[in-house]
Amino acid sequence: MTQPTFIELCKKLIGSDHVITDPAKMLPFVTDYRKRFTGKALAAVFPGHTRQVADVVKLCKLHKVPIVPQSGNTGLVLGSVPDESGKAIVLSLKRMNRIREIDANNNTMTVEAGCILDHVHTAAGQANLMFPLTLASSGSCMIGGNLGANAGGTSVLRYGTARDLCLGLEVVTADGDVWNGLYKLRKNNTGYDLRDLFIGSEGTLGIITAAVLKLFPRPKAQQTAFAAVKSPEDALKLLSLAQRFCGDSLTAFELISRYSLELVTRHFPEILSPLPFTYPWYVLLELSDAESDEHAARQFEKLLEHAIEEGVISDAAIAQTLGQSRTMWQLRENISAAQSKEGKNIKHDIAVPTSLFGEFIETADRLLEQYFPGCRMVTFGHLGDGSLHYNVAAPKGVSDESFLTHQAEINRIVYDCVNQFKGVISAEHGLGALKHVENASYKSGSENRLMKTLKKALDPDNLMNPGKVLP
Amino acid sequence: MTQPTFIELCKKLIGSDHVITDPAKMLPFVTDYRKRFTGKALAAVFPGHTRQVADVVKLCKLHKVPIVPQSGNTGLVLGSVPDESGKAIVLSLKRMNRIREIDANNNTMTVEAGCILDHVHTAAGQANLMFPLTLASSGSCMIGGNLGANAGGTSVLRYGTARDLCLGLEVVTADGDVWNGLYKLRKNNTGYDLRDLFIGSEGTLGIITAAVLKLFPRPKAQQTAFAAVKSPEDALKLLSLAQRFCGDSLTAFELISRYSLELVTRHFPEILSPLPFTYPWYVLLELSDAESDEHAARQFEKLLEHAIEEGVISDAAIAQTLGQSRTMWQLRENISAAQSKEGKNIKHDIAVPTSLFGEFIETADRLLEQYFPGCRMVTFGHLGDGSLHYNVAAPKGVSDESFLTHQAEINRIVYDCVNQFKGVISAEHGLGALKHVENASYKSGSENRLMKTLKKALDPDNLMNPGKVLP
Repeated sequence: MTQPTFIELCKKLIGSDHVITDPAKMLPFVTDYRKRFTGKALAAVFPGHTRQVADVVKLCKLHKVPIVPQSGNTGLVLGSVPDESGKAIVLSLKRMNRIREIDANNNTMTVEAGCILDHVHTAAGQANLMFPLTLASSGSCMIGGNLGANAGGTSVLRYGTARDLCLGLEVVTADGDVWNGLYKLRKNNTGYDLRDLFIGSEGTLGIITAAVLKLFPRPKAQQTAFAAVKSPEDALKLLSLAQRFCGDSLTAFELISRYSLELVTRHFPEILSPLPFTYPWYVLLELSDAESDEHAARQFEKLLEHAIEEGVISDAAIAQTLGQSRTMWQLRENISAAQSKEGKNIKHDIAVPTSLFGEFIETADRLLEQYFPGCRMVTFGHLGDGSLHYNVAAPKGVSDESFLTHQAEINRIVYDCVNQFKGVISAEHGLGALKHVENASYKSGSENRLMKTLKKALDPDNLMNPGKVLP
Repeated sequence: MTQPTFIELCKKLIGSDHVITDPAKMLPFVTDYRKRFTGKALAAVFPGHTRQVADVVKLCKLHKVPIVPQSGNTGLVLGSVPDESGKAIVLSLKRMNRIREIDANNNTMTVEAGCILDHVHTAAGQANLMFPLTLASSGSCMIGGNLGANAGGTSVLRYGTARDLCLGLEVVTADGDVWNGLYKLRKNNTGYDLRDLFIGSEGTLGIITAAVLKLFPRPKAQQTAFAAVKSPEDALKLLSLAQRFCGDSLTAFELISRYSLELVTRHFPEILSPLPFTYPWYVLLELSDAESDEHAARQFEKLLEHAIEEGVISDAAIAQTLGQSRTMWQLRENISAAQSKEGKNIKHDIAVPTSLFGEFIETADRLLEQYFPGCRMVTFGHLGDGSLHYNVAAPKGVSDESFLTHQAEINRIVYDCVNQFKGVISAEHGLGALKHVENASYKSGSENRLMKTLKKALDPDNLMNPGKVLP
């Protein structure tokens, strides 16, 4: 009698309906979000609960089959798709989409990895609470991936990254053990911080199957303002003023370069700039207020008047209606879409110490201009928390195709500069299979060694998302 | 020729002035803060900079000498003193007390492990900023220990524990490597979270030698209030109201039982209760306001008026002067001292989900009363972040000595109850050599295995603070 194959055993474990091997049907699960890469897989498997995830992991361990954990598959660094070998399975968590519990009096929610971020927002709202993680892909990204990649977004300034919004985890380890670390506690000093080790490890140390998320009271009021500044340095002065005037009410502080704004108004002509003239740089500010719209507006007025008097800003507008506020946010949120309409560019998701931002932008801009005269910088991002989207587009008249052949050189210029300013080459997107080699080249020997030691200890067979994070 | 001894080599590395072997002189370094335990050491060594720490660690590795890292030695769980074998050295970081940098525009400060917390506060204040970590021992505790034990304190509600206040670390690993992870970044998704693995590991995975700390703008105003409630449940209702009315301005929310308050007013008769009558429970609230004293006072008035109308509180007083505010805080801060004056008791530093606090206290009180009729509960703590000091004193007429013989049974009752309510037996003090065995008995097999795997991977010779954290 022949031994049942791995696939047959998989089907036995979780039901044959939940194991796909047809390459056409697997396509969405082996292709990355931006459709730049398509890998191959032995199968895509869809366990329905934690026990089944553990069973599949044990089976994979026995058969030495690598596992690519996947939830929303909205990552930007090829972290959730398999390579081209066809040896791995994609383990999709999308069926595990239950909200297990909302504990309003504890300000927590326990959810499974396959919960779509928007659904989490809705459920929190129904309990008159809020889950602050805010991402462009919130309609399709899932909590498992948000935590696996330690997602950032526009609310990090006040609420932190996904890491800061998670109190506990349930994880299936590389040997198919289930670690129930679903603590609902804000303080817990009973051993090593396993939670934060799994968060941000992009599925290379274990599979996050559920999490306890922190919820917050919903602010009574939100106000948005748009200010013009002469330079990133002045934007930083405004940030400092805003933190002093508004304290923790300041919930967003986004930098937008003139060219970034122009891209949006050109490709989305219905979105109008709130300011009558053009300026080199803009800042979008948001206040979340526990009192009232009036109070938030007064706070903004005091801040912006002071900033104008001090010569920190050139002009500013406070949104008077929800519509105006939405327009201001659309200017920020449509930069990526406007870029795509304009053509291709070379994207960087970087962080440097906030205090060095101005100098970094000046230095990197100058170097790029020196080597690629006329290249156009799409510079925008979360200045308030020290991270930036620093994208480089072809000079006018140069085709995207010929410009993109310089990607490696341009990355090198930008990343060397980031490194010189004590920054990192991934602020919020992670490393995946796209940045892991470059990242290792900038890390110290001791940091690379520590990471490898941990990987080897927790995944000795190298079956958990191999080829990601570490080269 | 005889080989130089380990001690001679140590002296060569860091200077003979900085190696103590005289047992009398070593006494403060082998005795714990509460003077309940005195261990023995081969030597106490005092390296002056990171390179010297690394050199000592390498020497210890070669000679298989265990290392007990120590900074302020103010821990409460025997985490920073050696055992009685006399085989280990105490590696004190107290000479490494430099503030390496204050980057006010980045809201960060880079300090060495031997910096006293109060000095950090002062230096932050000089830059017109604030480092929020607030502990009773701030005059002698040091940053290395604060991070090693992930210290908590009274500002966790708004600012988090020591872990949340640290952006980067410098660590000497068990093989004497120096990991420079002194990132000054609020976002960094470039690999495993090594920082949080070392924070809270109580020196068992490596030695923290320096850290990048987060600083914050100083609030313009602080207001304190004292409210009386009927039950912990009502205190939780008040917490929920306060979070809705005051948002992030709420920076402290401390529960105090009637008996705890009576202990203070009995032993410190100069400290008067701000309320004319007595009540079963009290709450101390603090608001930190970015605007003004008047604004903070108005916020408090609105909150407390609403809470009285809703029947959530029985009475309340808002401090009208700095002196009144200080008195309210003294009532809270002198509970530990008042307990000591009253006699000995059995202390527990526990966390349960905030929503279950009332039920937990009721259940644990009832069980203790059942087995130890008349025992007196000193219950107080950081209700806002879900942690409590739940201390048990002898019934009237029973001597401390005879009562303390029941410590193991009482711990068992309390900890079983904590476990039943999904809590942990150390909220902020850590495990050290005092709670590690009990802790392991409440953890799942998979959590214990994961912790041991990490310890073995990062400290294969078991020389870093052996016998702490893990049994």
